[in-house]
Amino acid sequence: MRSSRVAKDKFSAVKESFRRQGIMRLLGARISRLNAGIVEISASNRSEFSQQDGFVHAGVLVSLADSAGGYAVVSMLPMGSRVLSVELKMNFLKPAIGDVIRARGKVRKVGRTIAVCELDVGMRSRASWTTCAWGSQTVYCVRPREEPDSVPA
Amino acid sequence: MRSSRVAKDKFSAVKESFRRQGIMRLLGARISRLNAGIVEISASNRSEFSQQDGFVHAGVLVSLADSAGGYAVVSMLPMGSRVLSVELKMNFLKPAIGDVIRARGKVRKVGRTIAVCELDVGMRSRASWTTCAWGSQTVYCVRPREEPDSVPA
Amino acid sequence: MRSSRVAKDKFSAVKESFRRQGIMRLLGARISRLNAGIVEISASNRSEFSQQDGFVHAGVLVSLADSAGGYAVVSMLPMGSRVLSVELKMNFLKPAIGDVIRARGKVRKVGRTIAVCELDVGMRSRASWTTCAWGSQTVYCVRPREEPDSVPA
Amino acid sequence: MRSSRVAKDKFSAVKESFRRQGIMRLLGARISRLNAGIVEISASNRSEFSQQDGFVHAGVLVSLADSAGGYAVVSMLPMGSRVLSVELKMNFLKPAIGDVIRARGKVRKVGRTIAVCELDVGMRSRASWTTCAWGSQTVYCVRPREEPDSVPA
Repeated sequence: MRSSRVAKDKFSAVKESFRRQGIMRLLGARISRLNAGIVEISASNRSEFSQQDGFVHAGVLVSLADSAGGYAVVSMLPMGSRVLSVELKMNFLKPAIGDVIRARGKVRKVGRTIAVCELDVGMRSRASWTTCAWGSQTVYCVRPREEPDSVPA
Repeated sequence: MRSSRVAKDKFSAVKESFRRQGIMRLLGARISRLNAGIVEISASNRSEFSQQDGFVHAGVLVSLADSAGGYAVVSMLPMGSRVLSVELKMNFLKPAIGDVIRARGKVRKVGRTIAVCELDVGMRSRASWTTCAWGSQTVYCVRPREEPDSVPA
Repeated sequence: MRSSRVAKDKFSAVKESFRRQGIMRLLGARISRLNAGIVEISASNRSEFSQQDGFVHAGVLVSLADSAGGYAVVSMLPMGSRVLSVELKMNFLKPAIGDVIRARGKVRKVGRTIAVCELDVGMRSRASWTTCAWGSQTVYCVRPREEPDSVPA
Repeated sequence: MRSSRVAKDKFSAVKESFRRQGIMRLLGARISRLNAGIVEISASNRSEFSQQDGFVHAGVLVSLADSAGGYAVVSMLPMGSRVLSVELKMNFLKPAIGDVIRARGKVRKVGRTIAVCELDVGMRSRASWTTCAWGSQTVYCVRPREEPDSVPA
C-alpha cells in the first residue's frame, strides 16, 4: 500500500510535469501509458506535422520520443527528481505514415546520475502498427538535495 | 552564369520544398541561410516550444536541425533529387534559452547515396549566441532517374 | 532442403569473410552464434584489452559489436553481397569486467541498401552475464550486380 | 609559471594513464598531440587491423578515437580526475586506407560531470590525409573528492 501510494504520487508528478511542456500541447500529445520504467506518448497525426512528402517529420517523432524517455526515467527516480536529455540518437526505419503516432521510452539503465533509454516510435495505419523510428537516449538525473546547482552547464 | 542559374534553380527548389513542410509552418520557421552545403533555419522562440522547465524542448531543436541538414544535402545534389533522414544524433550542450533559435546543417560528406551532415543549434539571448545542441545526421540521397523504387523501405 | 543449402552456403560465406578480418584474429574472437539476422562474436578477455582502470576498453567492445552487426546483415542478404558500416552508436552501461566478452548484432531492418542493427555486448563474470554496452548501427548493403563501383565514397 | 607546471603535471598524468591502457599497446598506439582540450593518438597501420576487404576495421578507428576523446577531457579537468565514456557515435565517411591512423578528440563542452567531444580519425595515404571517421562522444567526469562511489553504475 505504501509503495502504491508512492507510485501514484510519482505518476501524478509525471502528469503535472507533462502539462507544463508547451510543445506537447502544441502537438496535441497525451500520455497513453505510464508504468515504472515505460512511458508512451501518443498524438493524432495532423497535416501540420508533415515534411515535404507528407510523411510525419522526423522532428515530431523525436519530440514525442524524447519526452517519453525522459518521463520513463522520472518514473524510476525518487519524488522531486529532475531530468535533462544529454543526447539522443534515432534511426528512421520506415516512412512515418498513418493516423496515430505513439512514442515509447523504456529505461535500459538507471544509475545515480546517468540513465539510458530505448526509444521507439510507431505509427498506426489501417489499424496496424509499424515501427518507424528507433533509437537511444542518455538522460542526466538530478535527484532531490543535489539541487539546485548540479545541473550540468 | 550557367552555374549561377543552376544554383538559383536549386535554391528555388529548396524553398519550394521547405514550404511543403507543415511542421516548419507550425514552428514559424524560415530559411535564414542558403548556400551550397550549408543551410540555416531559424525560428522565434515561443512558449509553446517549452519543456517542463521553460527551456526549448529538445524536439524543437531537432526538428529545425533535421530540416537544415536535409536541405544542406539537397543544395549539393542534382536538381530533382530527394533526401530522407536515415538517422540523427544530437548532444544537448546547454539549456536552450533565448528569443531566437537557429539550426545549421553543414555537409561533411556527399556520396552517391549517403551524405553526412554536422548539425548545430544556437540560441540568441541578450544579443549573444550560444550553441545548445550539436550532432550528426546521415541522409539517404535519391538522385533523379533512380526513382521511384530506390527509396529504402 | 534447397533453402537450408542456401543458408549453409551463406553461413560459410560469413565464416570465410570473418577469417579475412585481421582484427578478429588479433582479438582472438570467434563466431559463437550464426543465425539469419542474429550473429554473436565472442572473445576471452585478456589484459591487452584493458583501458586505464583494468576494464575492457570501449574500442574492443565496439570492434566485436561492429563485426557482429555487419555479419547479421550479411546473413540476410543474397549470396555475394557486401556490407559497410555507415555509422554506429554505443552506450556504455556498466564497467566491462569479466572473463568472456560476447557481442551480439541483431537486424532490426533490412532495406535494399540500408540495414539497421541493434548491438549489445555482454560480459561473463562468475558465470553470470551483464550487458555492458548497447547501441545501434547503420549498414550499407551492396548486393551482387550492383558491384563494383556502387560503394558510397 | 605556476600554470605551466600544472599543465606539465597534468600531461604527465595523461601519459601515465595512457601507458596503463593495454589496448593502446596492442595497437602500437602513441600520443602524437597533447594540448588542453585536444589530444591525438596515432598508430601505424598493420594487416592485423583489417576488416574483410583490407581496410582498417571500424573498431580500430573507434578504439583510438575513444581514448583520444577521453584524454582530451582529462586534459581540462583538475589533477586526479577520472573519466568514463558514456556513449559514442561515429560515422564512417571513407574506406580507411593508408599507412598511418590518427585519431583526434576535441572537447566541445566540459560541465561539472558531463563533457562532450568531437572525434575524427584520419588516414595518411601517399603523404596526404583523409578523414575516414567522424563523430561525437559523451564523457562522464569524476572529479577528485567526489570519489569513490560517484561512478555511474
